[in-house]
Amino acid sequence: MKALIVHAHPEPKSFNRAMRDVAEATLADMGHEVTVSDLHAMGFNPVSSAEDFGSRRDPDHMSYGLEQRHNWKAGTLAPEIAGEVEKLLAADFVLLVFPLFWFSTPAILKGWFDRVLLSGVFYGGRRVYDRGPMQGKRAMVATTLGGRDTMFGDNAVHPDLRNVLLPVERGTLQYIGMEVLPHFAAWHVPYVDDATRRKYLEDFEAHLRTLDTLEPLPRPTLDDFDDNFMPIQR
Amino acid sequence: MKALIVHAHPEPKSFNRAMRDVAEATLADMGHEVTVSDLHAMGFNPVSSAEDFGSRRDPDHMSYGLEQRHNWKAGTLAPEIAGEVEKLLAADFVLLVFPLFWFSTPAILKGWFDRVLLSGVFYGGRRVYDRGPMQGKRAMVATTLGGRDTMFGDNAVHPDLRNVLLPVERGTLQYIGMEVLPHFAAWHVPYVDDATRRKYLEDFEAHLRTLDTLEPLPRPTLDDFDDNFMPIQR
Repeated sequence: MKALIVHAHPEPKSFNRAMRDVAEATLADMGHEVTVSDLHAMGFNPVSSAEDFGSRRDPDHMSYGLEQRHNWKAGTLAPEIAGEVEKLLAADFVLLVFPLFWFSTPAILKGWFDRVLLSGVFYGGRRVYDRGPMQGKRAMVATTLGGRDTMFGDNAVHPDLRNVLLPVERGTLQYIGMEVLPHFAAWHVPYVDDATRRKYLEDFEAHLRTLDTLEPLPRPTLDDFDDNFMPIQR
Repeated sequence: MKALIVHAHPEPKSFNRAMRDVAEATLADMGHEVTVSDLHAMGFNPVSSAEDFGSRRDPDHMSYGLEQRHNWKAGTLAPEIAGEVEKLLAADFVLLVFPLFWFSTPAILKGWFDRVLLSGVFYGGRRVYDRGPMQGKRAMVATTLGGRDTMFGDNAVHPDLRNVLLPVERGTLQYIGMEVLPHFAAWHVPYVDDATRRKYLEDFEAHLRTLDTLEPLPRPTLDDFDDNFMPIQR
């Protein structure tokens, strides 16, 4: 299996980086071929702009998704984007490793979604969710938080982490067709002791080793919706 | 009232830009003092990194939030960040105008949250939600989507837009203490006719003119949680 780790943390000595290192070693030890996109180390530019396109379908008015389609076909996408598209198309398993910033990914990873997940290639028309182009492939989120686990949940001060991650897990990974496996979260990271951090890394390794038996999150099926995405009455 | 519009769209001829222009004109006509942060025009850098800090609390290991606190006090934050912090602190009303990319803000706006919403200034400890530093101030999301309104909701193919916007409305704007007013969404924008677009702009103007009577979204109160953020049994 080919695994792609997309990593977004600016500090190489961070615990988040240690999680990425554990993932890389564990997936390799399981016999998988591992590629890492370390977005900070690559100096990845997260800003969608006209500079992403070496040619233009409409030089006068940039519609980002339409130019993505045009430039992919023409082979004129910015090389930084085309390289990431190729890595993602080749991957059977995608692991996102990032610290939770403002209930979401850091901007550098958000921009990887914005620029790499090309319209027409990773989604289009009814080719979303269980009909998405990445069907048969799997993904997982691994994240670090400052908050405690007791701070997230239905009766907690913050919503359940699943609801917090909805734009990433459902609106991005499931949207393009991937099966999303349960996330791994390391809580209260800046405040816990070394033994707890070591335990997190052990638990994360164990979580990854169960990859093939983890039950994917539920997702919508396009069978339930007509060509206008209206629910089909049964 | 001082209004800050934060705008994130790369195409000056876009409908999203027309929404920003309507907001700017309407708020000014209502007698408010309007400032615009046009992130693309500013060339705003959304990537959190060590380059944000002119001095370091810990030169050897960058903890982003701790360095934000240190550099704010020392007056050594990158000028691009400090300028946005001052604009935000001065604002009574903040309007975010952006296209929905991957169930979220474009990366350039996500990075504005990551870099500008300083730890210690906009949140810290129990100073979140109704005890957040921005209490008494209001915010609103105005967004454009490719999807139809019927595609978002409890029985629709995608979740309700309120759930999609949870990281922004609750996890960011409410988190720092702001009252969040109901969002405005323009649906199916690339596919609708000019009459529909004009109607959206009229409706958006009307929405903004009711600013003072709109009921803010519900938010948690810290009164319900103890010092460890555990629910208080009553």
